[in-house]
Amino acid sequence: MSYTFRITGKKKIKLKSFDPEYDAGLTREEADAKTAALCKEMMELQELLYAASDHSVLIVLQGRDTSGKDGTIRVVTGPLNSLACNVASFKVPTANELAHDFLWRVHQQTPGRGQMTIFNRSHYEDVLVVRVHNLAPKKVWKARYDHINNFEQLLVDSNTIVLKFYLHISKEEQEARLLEREQDATKAWKLSAGDWKEREYWDDYTAAYEDAINECSTKDAPWHIVPANKKWFRNLAVAETIVDALKPYKKAWLKKLDAMGAEEKALIEEFRREKQTTK
Amino acid sequence: MSYTFRITGKKKIKLKSFDPEYDAGLTREEADAKTAALCKEMMELQELLYAASDHSVLIVLQGRDTSGKDGTIRVVTGPLNSLACNVASFKVPTANELAHDFLWRVHQQTPGRGQMTIFNRSHYEDVLVVRVHNLAPKKVWKARYDHINNFEQLLVDSNTIVLKFYLHISKEEQEARLLEREQDATKAWKLSAGDWKEREYWDDYTAAYEDAINECSTKDAPWHIVPANKKWFRNLAVAETIVDALKPYKKAWLKKLDAMGAEEKALIEEFRREKQTTK
Repeated sequence: MSYTFRITGKKKIKLKSFDPEYDAGLTREEADAKTAALCKEMMELQELLYAASDHSVLIVLQGRDTSGKDGTIRVVTGPLNSLACNVASFKVPTANELAHDFLWRVHQQTPGRGQMTIFNRSHYEDVLVVRVHNLAPKKVWKARYDHINNFEQLLVDSNTIVLKFYLHISKEEQEARLLEREQDATKAWKLSAGDWKEREYWDDYTAAYEDAINECSTKDAPWHIVPANKKWFRNLAVAETIVDALKPYKKAWLKKLDAMGAEEKALIEEFRREKQTTK
Repeated sequence: MSYTFRITGKKKIKLKSFDPEYDAGLTREEADAKTAALCKEMMELQELLYAASDHSVLIVLQGRDTSGKDGTIRVVTGPLNSLACNVASFKVPTANELAHDFLWRVHQQTPGRGQMTIFNRSHYEDVLVVRVHNLAPKKVWKARYDHINNFEQLLVDSNTIVLKFYLHISKEEQEARLLEREQDATKAWKLSAGDWKEREYWDDYTAAYEDAINECSTKDAPWHIVPANKKWFRNLAVAETIVDALKPYKKAWLKKLDAMGAEEKALIEEFRREKQTTK
């Protein structure tokens, strides 16, 4: 599979140049098989990440309502060992969170060495929803792109592998998914009156996402625009991107594992057993 | 009293140009009287800071062993209402703290709006003790000056008034204080075998402090080199600097207080009562 959705360095992308229907010519079955294999590989890499404890992994998931953030977490990172994998969801900030700078609550949730954290929404909301709904003056949110780049560079300099995903759906696909939620009693809880209202700001969000991606893509903390109309392709694209990002470290992590004493190796064994009993 | 110890913007100061004995020609009695008046003014300003809740105050105290960080906190900020004033002490980092970037534990302790926090030691230790004792490679601590400037700018942009103090004592004064600690049973607990050992690195710390001050002084987050051989002058200098930094906001805070409803004003009354009963 070959596609270039990775954005590195300041660009001037427009989302309309990216096809949300893209599927690399794969069938669903082919994609699901690839994703399953990649998830297996990811679990092995996670074990080495944990064993070596030299790096952290931070995965940022952003996307409009119904774009599939929860689904991606369930399918792609769900199989990982939760001893060293954590999901941080960022909802409407509390009064105490609002009393601090916008990165305060986010920084607290960053992964330690050996750990992987998935941000379900993130600090980017402070240049997305905050901008679209004028929750802060332009001067304030404009300054945040630099703050975000500096913050992510701090994490990168502290051995964090940072991967950011924008789950890219079309306006038509969102409508279909909102309607589906209305009709499916098991999914209705996910639908709030605000979702249809929020859809009216589609173009404003497009502009805000384009700026966030263009302003905050760096070699070390790239954005990935993931075609997400087809959930199975979205899962494959995210899984492959994560595995591709971790694989280059495999040799070094294995080397560190080999050099470990018996006591440390016993801890890794415990990690393996935990995985088998909890999954 | 007139002196210029405030460093703003990148400079090339040398500590030897600053006289640790400086006292502006005051007697101890004169200085203590001034300090007491300033502390009273600071308490009034703190009440307004808390009432308006538009700004935060971060005070960073750094200095060599025995330079008087604890004493400054006791005398200068001790009288403040602890409902809205907090001291954060940064000791040797824990394993979990070391597993994160060096600002992770520090960011968690930053003050929310209306609050004042005093850092007893701080993120600067990561370019001081870490550098002097080679606890991280030069490449790592060198990169931290930028990270610190970016981090402090984030706080400033979120309405934090940042004041950094280096308590400047001479090598002779430190010797006298260490000897005094050895002989005074009530102070002996503060003396560790490491203190005399650490003194051997005097010149390395001088170089590290000079770089920290020169690299990380900005208009919005200035360093202040406080003559600290005379404790009573040190207290006066710190108290005056804090009061001078807060006074320009007084009018705006008062205005906000005036515009408040009865319910909000009742909360301020509670704050006042709390102060009277706990002090």
